[in-house]
Amino acid sequence: MTGYNRVALIGLGLIASSMAHALRKAGLAGEIWGHARSEETRAAALEIGICDQVFETAAEAVRGADLVVLCVPVGAMGAIAAEIAPHLAVGCTVTDVGSVKAAVVEAVGPHLPAHVHFIPGHPLAGTEHSGPRSGFAALFSNRWWLLTPLEGTDAGALARLKACLTGIGANVDEMEVARHDLVLAVVSHTPHLIAYTMVGVADHLRRVTHEEVIKYSASGFRDFTRIAASDPTMWRDVFLTNKDATLDILGRFTEELFMLQRAIRMGDGQMLHDYFTRTRAIRRGIIEAGQDTAAPDFGRGAPGGESR
Amino acid sequence: MTGYNRVALIGLGLIASSMAHALRKAGLAGEIWGHARSEETRAAALEIGICDQVFETAAEAVRGADLVVLCVPVGAMGAIAAEIAPHLAVGCTVTDVGSVKAAVVEAVGPHLPAHVHFIPGHPLAGTEHSGPRSGFAALFSNRWWLLTPLEGTDAGALARLKACLTGIGANVDEMEVARHDLVLAVVSHTPHLIAYTMVGVADHLRRVTHEEVIKYSASGFRDFTRIAASDPTMWRDVFLTNKDATLDILGRFTEELFMLQRAIRMGDGQMLHDYFTRTRAIRRGIIEAGQDTAAPDFGRGAPGGESR
Repeated sequence: MTGYNRVALIGLGLIASSMAHALRKAGLAGEIWGHARSEETRAAALEIGICDQVFETAAEAVRGADLVVLCVPVGAMGAIAAEIAPHLAVGCTVTDVGSVKAAVVEAVGPHLPAHVHFIPGHPLAGTEHSGPRSGFAALFSNRWWLLTPLEGTDAGALARLKACLTGIGANVDEMEVARHDLVLAVVSHTPHLIAYTMVGVADHLRRVTHEEVIKYSASGFRDFTRIAASDPTMWRDVFLTNKDATLDILGRFTEELFMLQRAIRMGDGQMLHDYFTRTRAIRRGIIEAGQDTAAPDFGRGAPGGESR
Repeated sequence: MTGYNRVALIGLGLIASSMAHALRKAGLAGEIWGHARSEETRAAALEIGICDQVFETAAEAVRGADLVVLCVPVGAMGAIAAEIAPHLAVGCTVTDVGSVKAAVVEAVGPHLPAHVHFIPGHPLAGTEHSGPRSGFAALFSNRWWLLTPLEGTDAGALARLKACLTGIGANVDEMEVARHDLVLAVVSHTPHLIAYTMVGVADHLRRVTHEEVIKYSASGFRDFTRIAASDPTMWRDVFLTNKDATLDILGRFTEELFMLQRAIRMGDGQMLHDYFTRTRAIRRGIIEAGQDTAAPDFGRGAPGGESR
């Protein structure tokens, strides 16, 4: 069959609410049940209509579901898995949307009974907004959804999940768990930490430079602040649980930064020019791969413009 | 009077071509003459119609101009000033669009005769594209144009330049030279160096992770690559000429990064969470100040989405 009879969304933030909108639009979920810790979030989910029923506990929400999606911060996955394990229906599929995979496999796997299919996943989609009201059906459209199936995963359950995710617009890829965590440390986790750091530095200096940092932010800094506006809890957990890969990439980053810093100090213009020419080519690769718009400044309207 | 009878644009890249489009649209330039070193660029300028006449030398292009705008990389400003100095009309205004101001004042000032008005400037506008064909009239719309007038600047000449820049859509502000270079090191120069560095790290790892870095770039990394696609010559000169302020801010950045890196290594989740919460507030400040769109992901269309 295509889709699922009853989907249980555990955690009702940006990703879960977008999934709900997308599943309904594609007709891939008979019913959607949901759980969130906060009463306000549960009420919002009912009001917007992303869930048919909401529950105070995750254990209640998963009863009878043939697809359970864990949409809580990575650090909360283990406790949730322990709680829902005794209530999962035989043959149901459990997946998650965590940004780190090894830690989730380690925290969730041991709790789940043999009669369910656990297929870890990670949609490379999102915005800097959070909460149930920030979701929208097109979030996954043409975006990657990485699955990291474990050894012995049931081929039928995997194919069914893939078909569902493809049905809500995602491009599904499979990847090995450790490789996922390394690649994401490069393309996502380290860039986010760096953006947070740069915004933090500017925050300190704001006391020196009054409001100038905000007033003149269109000069490049602005893009960093967007990345650094993402959900603090989610990101805390990402760094704590993908520690090794993030520290590895951070080490490389610092080495590289010191080399450029030294070139500035020594006045080595040729080295800087060569470096900046090489990085320009990567941007072209991304546009050619269809992963961003070629329009200047992302095509954003005024207030727009990038400064120098 | 409003506007200028003849504007000479020295260097015909993104900023100069955008100025030409904007000046024509606003009816603020009688004639526009231009100079670029490359024959191809000069031909393009005539073909697009941004210049009425183009010249092989800057000396020829400035004859009879009442406004001369230096739009070359910061490192080329001194030589250009020496070349044009004997050919400048009495009472003309000379300005520039360099991203660094102390170095330009030092390189250009001594060459200019007493009978011209030298008013250094810097539009906080641009895109990651370069060259005469990348310009467009709305580039300066609602963007800041900083002027750093020197002691004894003629009030009439300053007011006339301000009126012209306001006429092409910019918000004009005055700032002291050294302060300009410090503020820009925070909001622009250091963020650009960091983006270049992160993209460089990913480029090395690309040999390890095949095409995955590009394929999954929407996860945050993509925004860095846009910034790191800017003109290499321009940016080489920015770092070489705003060396002290950039090295100062880089030092603060590294301290801060090491503190966060240590928190990751020690598993200090509270510290990370507090830090990420504080940086989120800055983003709100920028949106409230009208310097960016509140739309998720800059409002860019699919392929869109920010990942985790």
